[in-house]
Amino acid sequence: MSVTALCGGVGGAKLALGLYRTLPRGGLTVIVNTGDDFTHLGLRVCPDIDTVLYTLADLANPEQGWGRRDETWTMMRVLESLGGETWFRLGDGDLAMHILRTRELAGGASLSEVVGRFQSRLGLSAHILPMTDSGVATRLDTEDGDLGFQEYFVKLRCAPRVRSIRYEGAAAALPAPGVIDALAGDRVEGIVICPSNPYLSIDPILAVPALRAALQARRVPSLVVSPLIGGSAVKGPTAKIMSELGIASSPQAIFEHYRGLADALVIDASDIHAASRVPVPVFATNTLMSSLGDREALARFVSQRIGELAPPGSGRPEFSPSSIR
Amino acid sequence: MSVTALCGGVGGAKLALGLYRTLPRGGLTVIVNTGDDFTHLGLRVCPDIDTVLYTLADLANPEQGWGRRDETWTMMRVLESLGGETWFRLGDGDLAMHILRTRELAGGASLSEVVGRFQSRLGLSAHILPMTDSGVATRLDTEDGDLGFQEYFVKLRCAPRVRSIRYEGAAAALPAPGVIDALAGDRVEGIVICPSNPYLSIDPILAVPALRAALQARRVPSLVVSPLIGGSAVKGPTAKIMSELGIASSPQAIFEHYRGLADALVIDASDIHAASRVPVPVFATNTLMSSLGDREALARFVSQRIGELAPPGSGRPEFSPSSIR
Repeated sequence: MSVTALCGGVGGAKLALGLYRTLPRGGLTVIVNTGDDFTHLGLRVCPDIDTVLYTLADLANPEQGWGRRDETWTMMRVLESLGGETWFRLGDGDLAMHILRTRELAGGASLSEVVGRFQSRLGLSAHILPMTDSGVATRLDTEDGDLGFQEYFVKLRCAPRVRSIRYEGAAAALPAPGVIDALAGDRVEGIVICPSNPYLSIDPILAVPALRAALQARRVPSLVVSPLIGGSAVKGPTAKIMSELGIASSPQAIFEHYRGLADALVIDASDIHAASRVPVPVFATNTLMSSLGDREALARFVSQRIGELAPPGSGRPEFSPSSIR
Repeated sequence: MSVTALCGGVGGAKLALGLYRTLPRGGLTVIVNTGDDFTHLGLRVCPDIDTVLYTLADLANPEQGWGRRDETWTMMRVLESLGGETWFRLGDGDLAMHILRTRELAGGASLSEVVGRFQSRLGLSAHILPMTDSGVATRLDTEDGDLGFQEYFVKLRCAPRVRSIRYEGAAAALPAPGVIDALAGDRVEGIVICPSNPYLSIDPILAVPALRAALQARRVPSLVVSPLIGGSAVKGPTAKIMSELGIASSPQAIFEHYRGLADALVIDASDIHAASRVPVPVFATNTLMSSLGDREALARFVSQRIGELAPPGSGRPEFSPSSIR
């Protein structure tokens, strides 16, 4: 079975790991959010891509979810002593990725080429694709002013009330090589929207017009795994942002958010009472991924549902990848 | 007493430390070689400046002489696993300097401004001055071809036979702010050429025309500390290069090398037999700086000789700093 997953950082990467470990070798493609990429201290940092790479390569820090295991923090200590910016923490091992990436990008490589080299060096058989090689930057209009993603997310710890979110550069962005094929090619058998933050992690991906069009015109089942558990997010500001945007944090709202892009919804069993009016199949299970076993179990559950779902119905416009790229 | 020292990396920095610890507060200015600065992995690395900063701030690695004490090497390990270049080893703490410097230079700061900030952050009362804010690059014509300094020095461990050495950009380089004043200003009472490699560490400094002219026109005593001990260098390729250039590695040759720029020569007691024809005062002492006590003792010896030496004789052209800068 061959599955394409859309995901952001920590939460989505957990399901991506489950899929990676339960699908046949080479069966997983992950299209990753790049809207929170930024240049910090002169280095190009791609937090979600690195989280996915580290997670699949078993290099991720198991406690914090982001960053590397067995990390040291000597650079940050010295940087602090020199009066440098320390609000965004870069581990010493993590730095190697940013230094190499920055250098290769400056040398003319595309982000997807750089990610491809990392993936290969880390020995991963999954295909990790940035959503685009163009620059897309998630920005938030908040009650504390217009904020870049990392300023909002890391520096201000998601405290400012969000009024709206935009994805600068997305309208003109092209999907990275391989992305359209991963959604509309002959090999893919199903699409999974991971339980990442819909606004901060998945929407930047869907803001790339040709990518969204390919997903809308899909010929294989697409399934959303809700990031909510009991109406809250496991981690991160999903429910807080929904509330600030005047949206109830329910499976129904998650379905509405992805209307036209999903053929089924996987929710946590604790949310089943709030899913009665979702007009696509809803599958309830345990979606809390505390252990590796949980991740594999949810991945198997998702793969099985994909296998059972009928291909998306007719009445949807015909789609040809060549019309986009 | 106020002394200006010219120096390169490890060996010269040892004497600079001795001077720093024995001169009155604020009494030491160090003009540092930048000919071995280079851009590596996209980061601007200034090995001699950092060695001087670390040495004076008691942050230097006491075993290897270069780099920081209590260093970790996580970035290099990860870089190696990703297939990055590892021939030039950058410690994790050391990286903070390179990252900050690269960013500040990219933001329009001059190297001397960046070094001034580091010096201040490290709480140093010595004035650390790069020889120039212009780019000067030491290159070697060798039997293995034309080599950049770090390629020769670190990657090939000084193995190729040297035919000639040049300092690209030096002819057009201006001394960094403060350099001329440190050589020709009213406060300076003596100049010390540290026991650094004459060809690789001191000559790049002297290749900056206005700097050399200021030294030639000095009004205070200038004293060279020979880098040779028993006709050999303590560390590094000084004697090897002298041999390859057809020069005997003797105090006499060191004097000839600096003719017109030095009013006295300090040599190791083991070289006294080979110094009989040096036409300036020669002072013999222990110049091997194994311990901190050795460094302070040599520094005191040098300061005392400066105090005793008559100002450079007349017959030298009058020099005014304003004629140069």
